[in-house]
Amino acid sequence: MKIETKTAHFSAPLYLESGRILEPYEIAYESYGELNKDKSNVVLVCHALSGSHHAAGVYEGERKAGWWDGLIGEGKALDTNKYFVICTNVIGSCFGSTGPMSTNYTTQAPYRLKFPVVTIKDMIRAQMHLLSDLGIYHVRAIIGGSMGGMQALQFGVDYPNFSDDIISLAATYATRPWTIAFNKVAVEAIRRDPDFKHGNYEIGAFKEKGLDGLAIGRIAGHISYLSPESMDDKFGRNYVNNDGLFELFGRYEVERYMEYNTNNFSRIFDPLSYLYIVKAINTFNLSRGYDSLHEAILRIKATVHLISFSSDYLFFPAEMQQIAKMLKRNGQAYTYKEIQSDYGHDAFLVELDKFAAHIKEILQ
Amino acid sequence: MKIETKTAHFSAPLYLESGRILEPYEIAYESYGELNKDKSNVVLVCHALSGSHHAAGVYEGERKAGWWDGLIGEGKALDTNKYFVICTNVIGSCFGSTGPMSTNYTTQAPYRLKFPVVTIKDMIRAQMHLLSDLGIYHVRAIIGGSMGGMQALQFGVDYPNFSDDIISLAATYATRPWTIAFNKVAVEAIRRDPDFKHGNYEIGAFKEKGLDGLAIGRIAGHISYLSPESMDDKFGRNYVNNDGLFELFGRYEVERYMEYNTNNFSRIFDPLSYLYIVKAINTFNLSRGYDSLHEAILRIKATVHLISFSSDYLFFPAEMQQIAKMLKRNGQAYTYKEIQSDYGHDAFLVELDKFAAHIKEILQ
Repeated sequence: MKIETKTAHFSAPLYLESGRILEPYEIAYESYGELNKDKSNVVLVCHALSGSHHAAGVYEGERKAGWWDGLIGEGKALDTNKYFVICTNVIGSCFGSTGPMSTNYTTQAPYRLKFPVVTIKDMIRAQMHLLSDLGIYHVRAIIGGSMGGMQALQFGVDYPNFSDDIISLAATYATRPWTIAFNKVAVEAIRRDPDFKHGNYEIGAFKEKGLDGLAIGRIAGHISYLSPESMDDKFGRNYVNNDGLFELFGRYEVERYMEYNTNNFSRIFDPLSYLYIVKAINTFNLSRGYDSLHEAILRIKATVHLISFSSDYLFFPAEMQQIAKMLKRNGQAYTYKEIQSDYGHDAFLVELDKFAAHIKEILQ
Repeated sequence: MKIETKTAHFSAPLYLESGRILEPYEIAYESYGELNKDKSNVVLVCHALSGSHHAAGVYEGERKAGWWDGLIGEGKALDTNKYFVICTNVIGSCFGSTGPMSTNYTTQAPYRLKFPVVTIKDMIRAQMHLLSDLGIYHVRAIIGGSMGGMQALQFGVDYPNFSDDIISLAATYATRPWTIAFNKVAVEAIRRDPDFKHGNYEIGAFKEKGLDGLAIGRIAGHISYLSPESMDDKFGRNYVNNDGLFELFGRYEVERYMEYNTNNFSRIFDPLSYLYIVKAINTFNLSRGYDSLHEAILRIKATVHLISFSSDYLFFPAEMQQIAKMLKRNGQAYTYKEIQSDYGHDAFLVELDKFAAHIKEILQ
């Protein structure tokens, strides 16, 4: 599968939920498989906080495949022999779509903290523009996990006739304070890091040595993506160096993992983008703009497929069950599946075997 | 109740688990109630990470009572009409016992990072010295929550004949990677904070404006002390200022709470002490020094009372149940009680009503 990132330019303004305008803007995206003649085989994939439009395939000269490569491809759950699978980078990101470090047309300098706050609603509105641009006015399905699952649900509510199926994994109806608190670690760690310079760091400043604040915040993230059980399995109480047990900074395996992964991440991910995307997650609330959550959900015309994971400590199965209950009470079409998993929130990225067949079934 | 902190000086060395020696050292402590003639009415209370020997009563001119004031006093669960209740500050702390900012006798300067790593075993060994000094060779009960609960269990294992009852709340048999990961946020946030100066900050440097690194790490702590449910109840999705919803740093109530509490904490608590006490928690493992956990627990002669809290996301009820199972299998005397609570790990400090009667009963 040859992978190519495209970028769409929009000169028309994007009207944001805040009342502000983003203009002009760009959206980076990738697609896998062929668009059929009547454009009836589109599956839209939405990515999570740390993800990008690179959902499948391997770039030339690279080793690591896209984040849902196990799910997208020939013969896979999102079968590229059948479907035209498209994944776009959310606005606010640092991977190609317009974000806080993009050039502000008016000032010809990066937006930085002048970038407007974007919401999940804004992210999907931008995607609607892209799809319209491609002549796609209806899709077979929209699927995503975590923030991607929020987007899928928001699509169902805001554009009721746009998709036949909405598949939302490891998400919620509104972000709870528990999750906002996890994100708060990153917000404060970045904000207070002297190298962040109140958002005025130099472009590329963290390529060599990432921003400490982002790395520290990301540790809290990683905790919420895993579970006590997955950490037991993965790390146990193993020590990196047993001689270090009585050294103050001697490290357990779990500590080494956290350092390694978060240091790497902070070299790749832009701290301002992180703040903006976290803000979008924190402000996610399906009911905003509608009279109530009930009214919002009642708008959905697609069949909603909810998939939760038993050990998800970020968005608990009970939250997805609440959506399911509402859909049931309203007589709306839905399925709900709780996957037994020890992998915590990350299960939607890791335990593909446990839900790939289910997704294949949904699409048949 | 008149409250007075005493300090005991020890010139004999404290032999630490690491093989190192602490010499000389001091232990700050408080007691409530009267020691009876045959010294048979002693209850030892052990404090948690952020606690101190100030477990009950109100200091002159202050408002806030000791951390377990609801449990300790005349007619209360730990009835000071009957019992001589004593609580000591752990070594490594910054509230009076010898810790990393204490003066190293040899160099006449603060130990700082030269302070030896101390463990839960070391903390209780130091307490044994204090009690011996007071002529107390046997106690009626040892009680504590979280790190205090670890100490109580360790007393039971290391000094089997020392106490009639061991009461351990919200603790575990060995700290799991999940908890070590939560602590890792603080370790990294402190370690990487430029104002920490690799431990060479000036004494009193953070009295006015606390250390950011400690405040940030403490946010992760607070998450683990609460629960998703308690945060829902406490904060909901309320905004501090609704106009700020679309401002990048606009804050939810839960964010304001985290900022307020952690900033305050970082003005009071010494960052080096925090690192050392967190290290003691991370290295806690009842089985260390014995052939196995089973062998360790088999040593206990006291009746063990385990109290867990249903929503504790730091030390899960399943961990206490594992200890209970072992005690049962061995035919050792024990009770196990799981308290239904939404207050998470903090329940042992907050929901006294739910277990005070149970503790009173144990002591009768």
